[in-house]
Amino acid sequence: MRIVVCCTEMKPAPWIAGLSAALPGATVEEWRPGAPQADHAVVWAPPQQLFDEQPRLKGVFNTGAGVDALLKLRLPPEAVLVRLDDAGMSVQMAEFVCHALVRHFRELDGYERDAAEGRWSFRRPRPRSDFPVGVMGLGVLGQRVAQAVAGFEFPVRGWSRGAKDVPGVQCFAGAQQFDAFLAGTRVLVNLLPLTPETENIMNRATLGRLLPAGYVINVARGAHLVDEDLLALLDGGHLAGAALDVFRTEPLPPGHPFWAHPRITVTPHTSARTLRDESIAQIARKIRAFEQGEPLVGVVDLQRGY
Amino acid sequence: MRIVVCCTEMKPAPWIAGLSAALPGATVEEWRPGAPQADHAVVWAPPQQLFDEQPRLKGVFNTGAGVDALLKLRLPPEAVLVRLDDAGMSVQMAEFVCHALVRHFRELDGYERDAAEGRWSFRRPRPRSDFPVGVMGLGVLGQRVAQAVAGFEFPVRGWSRGAKDVPGVQCFAGAQQFDAFLAGTRVLVNLLPLTPETENIMNRATLGRLLPAGYVINVARGAHLVDEDLLALLDGGHLAGAALDVFRTEPLPPGHPFWAHPRITVTPHTSARTLRDESIAQIARKIRAFEQGEPLVGVVDLQRGY
Repeated sequence: MRIVVCCTEMKPAPWIAGLSAALPGATVEEWRPGAPQADHAVVWAPPQQLFDEQPRLKGVFNTGAGVDALLKLRLPPEAVLVRLDDAGMSVQMAEFVCHALVRHFRELDGYERDAAEGRWSFRRPRPRSDFPVGVMGLGVLGQRVAQAVAGFEFPVRGWSRGAKDVPGVQCFAGAQQFDAFLAGTRVLVNLLPLTPETENIMNRATLGRLLPAGYVINVARGAHLVDEDLLALLDGGHLAGAALDVFRTEPLPPGHPFWAHPRITVTPHTSARTLRDESIAQIARKIRAFEQGEPLVGVVDLQRGY
Repeated sequence: MRIVVCCTEMKPAPWIAGLSAALPGATVEEWRPGAPQADHAVVWAPPQQLFDEQPRLKGVFNTGAGVDALLKLRLPPEAVLVRLDDAGMSVQMAEFVCHALVRHFRELDGYERDAAEGRWSFRRPRPRSDFPVGVMGLGVLGQRVAQAVAGFEFPVRGWSRGAKDVPGVQCFAGAQQFDAFLAGTRVLVNLLPLTPETENIMNRATLGRLLPAGYVINVARGAHLVDEDLLALLDGGHLAGAALDVFRTEPLPPGHPFWAHPRITVTPHTSARTLRDESIAQIARKIRAFEQGEPLVGVVDLQRGY
């Protein structure tokens, strides 16, 4: 078995060493133009050339959860596309979202601003019941986030394409229940996959349906959000703020109005980092299962887009 | 039955209205010097004069969890002292501590500082296993905090005076296990009651036993911490930072070095606010139970101090 590794922005050596150690008998090497035909590719943001030159790939293993960038490429005809599921990402998402939620709900940014000026301030506590949290996307990451938020006794609602049943979460499904989901949500958390259906899903109309003083936490993809619509609703007063970790263009370009907006918290796509060791172990397990004809978790439905 | 309310820093009217509604037949009034003898007092930071003038009080109900200030007063000889337990405070503590922990672990303060300067930065993720969290005090609040932290997959250890068994928490007890508890802790969370034994418990010797780059989260009482020792260990490099919500003198005096220290986050005793409606309901329930001779939760052991 031959495996090529093509992970832009990551050093290949630890991936090659880790996969080699976990898959004895496999030849693992960095992909370069003209490399011999491989059975599997382990990729992050690879060039089209990789797939053009490797038409016999059976498995393409993405080292992240979101595969929207890969789906814009032409994959080899027989290749199964497999995404990372969890591998230490869901707990990162859960803690990142809870941090942003608690920071907003408890006005900790305001308290810290006061403290920076040496001011001992008081803000009246706000009832938790006034802050229903709505999670869009109820996959592995979305469910983990929803349950972490429920652990802090916020009312939690979830929305997904197909109907789901998540304990402690009021579930809504499909286009016909989307407005009802939004209308009862004050803090909107986005964990959807990026597909043609979900692109621009957070826009003036949908965000305008949130409860007044809504708050947006985007930890999925920048293209889910129409930047100008968010800014208009913030400046018009309907939204109270936003915590944005993902952007249409990354790095977020200098001078983009998000950087300096007083009610937007920008973080550099750090909500859930790929953890190398966990990811290598998971991909090695999946390649073994694939070779043995066992069922795989995380196979992407190319039509559905996730 | 006659009840007097004497809650410094709070408006008495909602307490009087709430307790009256919940306890039909009781006379509830604000305490003033010379008020008629009452059966119960509902208090927050009352003057000694209240107890001197009300020697026949049977119950003294504190509207907070910590009773250290009350124990410095002379209470009426027969009075049972009862503290608030939970009433919406444990979830506040859990979310406040998790926010501080995640903010430190994920370096979100650094990312936000970078963003304020328009910088898209990268920090290598740190393994969760390198951040064992030690919770001092395993009462209602401490247990809730420990379990919330465990939910984010941090190794959690707890220390209490008497031996406890908390699922998912490695428990240490008593003076003889305190050093072992500290030696395996990187993030120290203080939720102890303030008693003569716990005063100054966070000092140069004890904080010096934490793992290198330790972090201190104090949400109990300012007098648990020796301010100068914390500053010395921060400036000497053994401690990485601190999130402090409570102080020896509150409000924290202008010019105190904590205000401006770059690695100390100051908040104004806001980690767990008394929530009026929950507290009124709980105290009314306790007064009813008391009058009916039923067992009470939250009775303070005056010798032990909590």
